[in-house]
Amino acid sequence: MKKIGLFGYGVVAKGFYQALKQNAHLNAEIVKICVKNGNKNRDLDDSYFTTDASEILDDPEIDIVVELIDDSIAAKDIVRFSLAKGKAVVSANKKMIADNITEIATWHDVYSQAFLYDAAVAGSIPIIQTIEQFFGQQDIQSIRGILNGSCNYILSSMRQHSLTFDEALKKAQALGYAESNPVLDISGEDALNKLVILSYHAFGHLAKKEEARLESITNMEDWFYKAAANNNQKIKLIATVKYKNGQLKLKVQPELVSEGDELYGVEFESNAICVEGNLSGVQTYIGKGAGSLPTASAVINDLSLLLSGFKYQHRKRGSQLMSA
Amino acid sequence: MKKIGLFGYGVVAKGFYQALKQNAHLNAEIVKICVKNGNKNRDLDDSYFTTDASEILDDPEIDIVVELIDDSIAAKDIVRFSLAKGKAVVSANKKMIADNITEIATWHDVYSQAFLYDAAVAGSIPIIQTIEQFFGQQDIQSIRGILNGSCNYILSSMRQHSLTFDEALKKAQALGYAESNPVLDISGEDALNKLVILSYHAFGHLAKKEEARLESITNMEDWFYKAAANNNQKIKLIATVKYKNGQLKLKVQPELVSEGDELYGVEFESNAICVEGNLSGVQTYIGKGAGSLPTASAVINDLSLLLSGFKYQHRKRGSQLMSA
Repeated sequence: MKKIGLFGYGVVAKGFYQALKQNAHLNAEIVKICVKNGNKNRDLDDSYFTTDASEILDDPEIDIVVELIDDSIAAKDIVRFSLAKGKAVVSANKKMIADNITEIATWHDVYSQAFLYDAAVAGSIPIIQTIEQFFGQQDIQSIRGILNGSCNYILSSMRQHSLTFDEALKKAQALGYAESNPVLDISGEDALNKLVILSYHAFGHLAKKEEARLESITNMEDWFYKAAANNNQKIKLIATVKYKNGQLKLKVQPELVSEGDELYGVEFESNAICVEGNLSGVQTYIGKGAGSLPTASAVINDLSLLLSGFKYQHRKRGSQLMSA
Repeated sequence: MKKIGLFGYGVVAKGFYQALKQNAHLNAEIVKICVKNGNKNRDLDDSYFTTDASEILDDPEIDIVVELIDDSIAAKDIVRFSLAKGKAVVSANKKMIADNITEIATWHDVYSQAFLYDAAVAGSIPIIQTIEQFFGQQDIQSIRGILNGSCNYILSSMRQHSLTFDEALKKAQALGYAESNPVLDISGEDALNKLVILSYHAFGHLAKKEEARLESITNMEDWFYKAAANNNQKIKLIATVKYKNGQLKLKVQPELVSEGDELYGVEFESNAICVEGNLSGVQTYIGKGAGSLPTASAVINDLSLLLSGFKYQHRKRGSQLMSA
């Protein structure tokens, strides 16, 4: 039986606990949960909980760390220390991964254990696994997707329920689909962060965020809404990356999407990603971008993958495959 | 370097040859190709080809057999002999897999090597892998999809180009999207075959085809077309399986699909599958259902998976997970 140390006991962590309960075949159990506040009433026995990270990090019996806290600075330390202690790690911390992708790309050579983080991009959709595995045999030519559920929720409800931007934002916040401070989401930066992560796995190169084209959904002009309405199009915040002549080109911007487009029907909190490979052509993945159990489904998939020996390959691609 | 014996050198096999060429990192090479007709002019050196299957089956140096012939009876013998000789096998033969799924389910216990066949269902989409791996940690509640590209091509072109059924069928045949004998496709039986394969992997139970509801796209009445047109709906041949009270319920029939449905935008030769898991919710996969390189992308993914030690689990599901 593999022993798991869990950091955090919020919405996703509770989902993960529940998901693990229905998966006895994984032969893994949570033995300790490290939380910030030790005085809350919780639905598990007190003996599970600690506020002392070293009770997990320094316990040689713990094989795997699952990191599901909010604080991205603390999360990075937890992941690095865990890897240094020879523990495999699963994380869902999109901000931590995105902020540190350059450094994380080097950990692969330094630490022997796997570090998987598919839940950090597009919630339930196992897109990093798909890029690493299925598209590992192909040149990826482009990635295009709806990577921010808050923006998509706002844009869907503006259109379907004739709300103003502010009304739609408030509704999204009330339902938990947007943060109380929504700047990271509506600026498009969250989607760009995720695109940088995907680009790294798809092309083996680290993109420079400051060179990306980034447009917020707050700056759309009236003609844009009218154009969409007049042509039966929908406005979606689309993240796109292409690799051309050794250069990554990233953009995140509101776009007019027509019927027949793979992303046309993707509404509200859903995420979607179209990956174009030189063998398969375009393949599209649609699923829930957030939520307790959906995000936990990606976390437990990572757990299952690392138990089977799976690791990210961190292969440089593009150049050598493109020429074939 | 792993050695591959290839059976067949038709459209998909040529795609596979090309796909393997761009994947030196797999450390696998085709050393022999068994074909029915030895006298054709081919684009590879004559020394590759044989008409004698034993040159592959009896060669202890050959580790892996890739079976890509049309004849489903011969294909079954090739796969079984290969497994018996301790070779791992990849096949794309949907008719052979579907006709023999009950027996194939037992091979897992008899033979030690992997037998993978993801290209047999939904062309490029790695749906069996996804069901085995990502959904291996979840209860699958339903599967619903467009699994026959010929029917979808016919229905799309009837609608988009105002063709009659016969005109659309002829066009699909001319473009290679439908067989010269299209009965297996347009009766819905091909989609049902694929649904039986998916059901087995999703639920661990073998469905009885004769208990499935099966309706052809040739028997639709006028009111059905009118209803679709009047309500901005589209007609799609939808394959559905649900698992309830220990029973699999399968159906394949033309259905009216509304805007907002995941399958609404899936046109022409594309395939799509929606899988509903108890953790992730519904996840949708869309991709090319046929074609040389797209199908080869699934074949080479299977090759990569078996080289990494992946096997189908053939787990009974439903009962024990459902209760969690």
